[in-house]
Parts: sequence; C-alpha cells; structure tokens
Amino acid sequence: MTISTRRAKAAEIASVKEISIKAVWERFSDEQRRELDKEPWSRRIGELFDMMVKKESHRVFIAEDDNQALLGYVWIGEGSNPMTGTNHGYIYDIFVKEEQRRKGIGMRLMEEAERYCRKTEYHEMLLMVAVTNQPAQKLYAKQGFKAEQMYMLKRLT
Amino acid sequence: MTISTRRAKAAEIASVKEISIKAVWERFSDEQRRELDKEPWSRRIGELFDMMVKKESHRVFIAEDDNQALLGYVWIGEGSNPMTGTNHGYIYDIFVKEEQRRKGIGMRLMEEAERYCRKTEYHEMLLMVAVTNQPAQKLYAKQGFKAEQMYMLKRLT
Repeated sequence: MTISTRRAKAAEIASVKEISIKAVWERFSDEQRRELDKEPWSRRIGELFDMMVKKESHRVFIAEDDNQALLGYVWIGEGSNPMTGTNHGYIYDIFVKEEQRRKGIGMRLMEEAERYCRKTEYHEMLLMVAVTNQPAQKLYAKQGFKAEQMYMLKRLT
Repeated sequence: MTISTRRAKAAEIASVKEISIKAVWERFSDEQRRELDKEPWSRRIGELFDMMVKKESHRVFIAEDDNQALLGYVWIGEGSNPMTGTNHGYIYDIFVKEEQRRKGIGMRLMEEAERYCRKTEYHEMLLMVAVTNQPAQKLYAKQGFKAEQMYMLKRLT
C-alpha cells in the first residue's frame, strides 16, 4: 500500500468535519456532555468549523492509500499568542483512522503541516493535547514539540 | 500580622497592572524576548490589560496587611470554551510577593476568586500554569484543580 498526502479537496472537507465534530464530542467529560444538548451543540460547532476552516490561513491535508480512501487528516491554521502579540501555526485537529495507526501516517501529516508553517514563516507551531494522552505526547515530543503550559480545571458543581 | 482580602480599588489596579506586565515579560523564553521590542510590546500589553480588566465580568482581589501594604492579588474574569460554547471563571493572574509566600496568601486569594465564580454561577474554574512550575501545580491540585490539556510547542527557527 502506498500512502500519499495532499491538500484536501472541498468535497473531502465534509468528511473531515464529521470526524472532527465526533472526536470533540467524545473527548468531553461526562459532566460536560450532561450539560450540553447534542443537537444544538452539533449545529453550533458545525458552523464554527465552517467559519474557521475556510479562512485564508487554514489548510487541511489528508493521507490516502492507492484507492483514494481517506486514512487521516491534519487541520492547521493561524493561532495567536495574546501575550507576545505574534502569530503561529496551530494544529486544530489531527486524526488517523484506528486501523491505520502506528504506520507513520500521523508523522507524514505533521510533516505537511510543518512544511506549510515554514512556508508561511511562522516561528512556532503549537498544539494542544490531553494531559492523560501520553502516547500522543510521546509522538509529538519525537517530532520536536515541548510541553509548555497546561490548563487546570476545578468543577464547582 | 493580620492578612485581609478585598476587592481592589481603582487606584490599586495600576500597581497590579505593573506587576502583571513585568511577570508576563519574565515568563517569556529568551527566543520570545529576542523577537519582541520591549517598548511597543509594553504599550500593547498595557492596553490589552486595561481593556480586559474593566470588563463587567472581571474582578481583582488583593491581600493586604495591617498597614494596607499590597501582599498579592488575583485577577479573575470570564473565559469561554469554544468547544462546549459555555463560559467559566478564568484566573488571568495570581501573584504573591516573594517575601510573603508560603503563608497561605495565595490560598486566601483563590478562595476569593472561587467565591466570586460560585456567585456568578460558573460551573468551572480554569487556570493556566507552566508545565515546569510544579510547586504551583501542587498548590492548585490541593485546591481541587486537575490538569486537563497542555500546549506543546515547536520552534521552527
């Protein structure tokens, strides 16, 4: 099987959107899901996705096999650091199909994202990862990412 | 020495601003400082501080001793989670003077912030802390905060 990566076509963005929204929902805690109404939430997050992804500074790259089946994607766009006032490349989402993992596809997608960031002349690339997701953290560390800041949360209810 | 906490008066916000901006600058990496011009940066961040702190949902509480000397402060305001679409209390800054640390002042300030969040009916309180700042993380954990998400960064230059 040959794996290739390329910029996503408009029609493929619909699949990316569906997978991305499903992943966001699944990452929520039980408390968060209990407080949300899934239908209006899905509509709102879908509109947010559409609004973000079509920005000039945003790119979606996909990985596919010989049969043009979608194996994974990375969504990169411009983020900004309110403290420094500078912009950077921000990984909004990265995904590899369950049965396609541990084949280096995520690495290939990250390379596409990095190439785009260098071309755009960002000095930094950022991403956010769950503190509990150590396998992902290890992969990112292998690619040169360093843990910087973490969010801590307290439930008040 | 009796330590008391209360909402900051308008005149005290100027001291808070000065300390807060100095702390932001000191937390930057050498690379970040090299890329920034300190004078225009200070002006911009000062304007950002003024704009944020005067919002209806923002509060600054200070700790003081019998002589009304400023020992520390906490700045809390509304944050929002773009994924859930819900608002929460966000600790923009918390500070205790070097020589006043390990006396429970930070804890008292966090209690003020939490009281404000409960009154405002936020279901969550969030803060951000450097991954390397383990003493602060331990204090926050003691107060019921749990690490959630972390930023990882790669320099491209």
